[in-house]
Amino acid sequence: MKFEVTILGSSSATPIFNRNPTAQVLNINEKLYLVDCAEGTQQQMLRFDVKASRIDYIFISHLHGDHYLGLVGLLSSMHLNGRKKPLQLFCPPQLKEIIDLQLKYSETTLHYPIEYVFTSDEKRTVILDNQDIVVETIPLDHRIPTTGFLFTQKKRLRKLIKERIEELNIPVAFYSALKKGRDYEAPDGTIYKNDTLSIDSDAPKSYAYCSDTIYTEKYFEQIYGADLLYHEATFLHDMLDRANQTHHTTAWQAGDVALKNNIGKLIIGHFSARYKTLNELLDEAQSVFPNTELAVEGKTFVISE
Amino acid sequence: MKFEVTILGSSSATPIFNRNPTAQVLNINEKLYLVDCAEGTQQQMLRFDVKASRIDYIFISHLHGDHYLGLVGLLSSMHLNGRKKPLQLFCPPQLKEIIDLQLKYSETTLHYPIEYVFTSDEKRTVILDNQDIVVETIPLDHRIPTTGFLFTQKKRLRKLIKERIEELNIPVAFYSALKKGRDYEAPDGTIYKNDTLSIDSDAPKSYAYCSDTIYTEKYFEQIYGADLLYHEATFLHDMLDRANQTHHTTAWQAGDVALKNNIGKLIIGHFSARYKTLNELLDEAQSVFPNTELAVEGKTFVISE
Repeated sequence: MKFEVTILGSSSATPIFNRNPTAQVLNINEKLYLVDCAEGTQQQMLRFDVKASRIDYIFISHLHGDHYLGLVGLLSSMHLNGRKKPLQLFCPPQLKEIIDLQLKYSETTLHYPIEYVFTSDEKRTVILDNQDIVVETIPLDHRIPTTGFLFTQKKRLRKLIKERIEELNIPVAFYSALKKGRDYEAPDGTIYKNDTLSIDSDAPKSYAYCSDTIYTEKYFEQIYGADLLYHEATFLHDMLDRANQTHHTTAWQAGDVALKNNIGKLIIGHFSARYKTLNELLDEAQSVFPNTELAVEGKTFVISE
Repeated sequence: MKFEVTILGSSSATPIFNRNPTAQVLNINEKLYLVDCAEGTQQQMLRFDVKASRIDYIFISHLHGDHYLGLVGLLSSMHLNGRKKPLQLFCPPQLKEIIDLQLKYSETTLHYPIEYVFTSDEKRTVILDNQDIVVETIPLDHRIPTTGFLFTQKKRLRKLIKERIEELNIPVAFYSALKKGRDYEAPDGTIYKNDTLSIDSDAPKSYAYCSDTIYTEKYFEQIYGADLLYHEATFLHDMLDRANQTHHTTAWQAGDVALKNNIGKLIIGHFSARYKTLNELLDEAQSVFPNTELAVEGKTFVISE
């Protein structure tokens, strides 16, 4: 099952030419999930050929502008482009108030429903559970209530061993039960154990999105073993004081989070505009956790094929 | 006195790659005035080297997102970049409510004051009068309350005829009075008429900004004779019904407005995303009013040197 993330924006609040503030889009089994939606996200979607009409879920981590100021424009464009199907919006409850006020004064009544699911940084909570994915909030520690999001694939059904199925001439009507792990009893009464007829599907993969937060162990247990971790790395470690003061993380710390939590691969992002190039941030994180990459706009990271 | 306008965005609401929604910046005697501030305006300012720190006045025509959704991000960046000096914001009163709500939920207290001047589409009103410029609202006719803005240079002082001043050995102390039009009485009692000692300054130039509006004569008197007119031209004239229905103008109509009002030069903008290229819109406006140009992003139009 396809499970991948494309970076649409990688910078923090103050603008810098050619880097956009935070937004990402996940493709999970050909459905699109938008994670944060900073100003300019629509232009980035056009640039990287991400169709807004294919997005049914939007997740907003917190109400700093560099994570949501592109949302009202996107909602309006969906409306102008004739969207009718519902959109699920996972966000702090105050965002509804902001959206409603802006729609009110532009005298806009959206032609499609927004189904809100409000997040809270009080405790980890499953906020979405569909046929492909389970999404859980990751309570972070930032200046205002902020949650990351943990996306975990659903366990897929077992895969039939085609040759054995044909050899035994098992009727199609039994396939569904076999995929769920049931043994097969042939017409002559012979019992065939399931593990001789099917193999287990791949282990479910997971993606943890952590932005913005100070370095803290409070969410370590939750992200432990994630196949891919996106973690903010706003500053180099020589600016640790500034990171602590603004409740952000350094590149060294992001590497440390990945190392301590048995992460498969780390992506760092949310770079301060003070860094015109990003090599030093990458080097610093890689010095702790070698399998680190930069959140480069337009780049897609594959979590599972 | 320098008086020029640079286009930062030229498209209407639905996004299109490589065109940004509406924003413009005026340079009036080396002070910057921002007119509308759609999403992405900060990135456009970086692209065209417009320093946010030099902007002291921002004008918002109305509360459709494609005219103001970049504002909260810009205000936040000014704050993050250490701005202390006041900013004057000319806008519909509801915008203050929107800004205050967003600052509240991001727990941001700006380090500089915003001085609001609220606009109304009830009647034309002078909203700014400083040493360089007088700005008046232009009540337009759109779906929600909308005003354009008429920028008129202040009449400058007369220019001294240097050779005559030196020839007559007129003391510097008299210069200021001469520039204001006073005659000069020499020590021997001779009266020198002012127009033999100074020449009149250039006639004050004016720039009219009209976006968004249906075609209407209600503001014709106000923009009559403007040196430069920016007028929206969202559609080609074959979509007149759609223009009327959405309270927009066609390119043909924009040309007609310029022709009927003795305009020096016309700029058309606010193009619908349906037009991938803009030649037809330009041709149509020019068929009525030849001295028309397109609002191309990054292009500067000089109103006076």
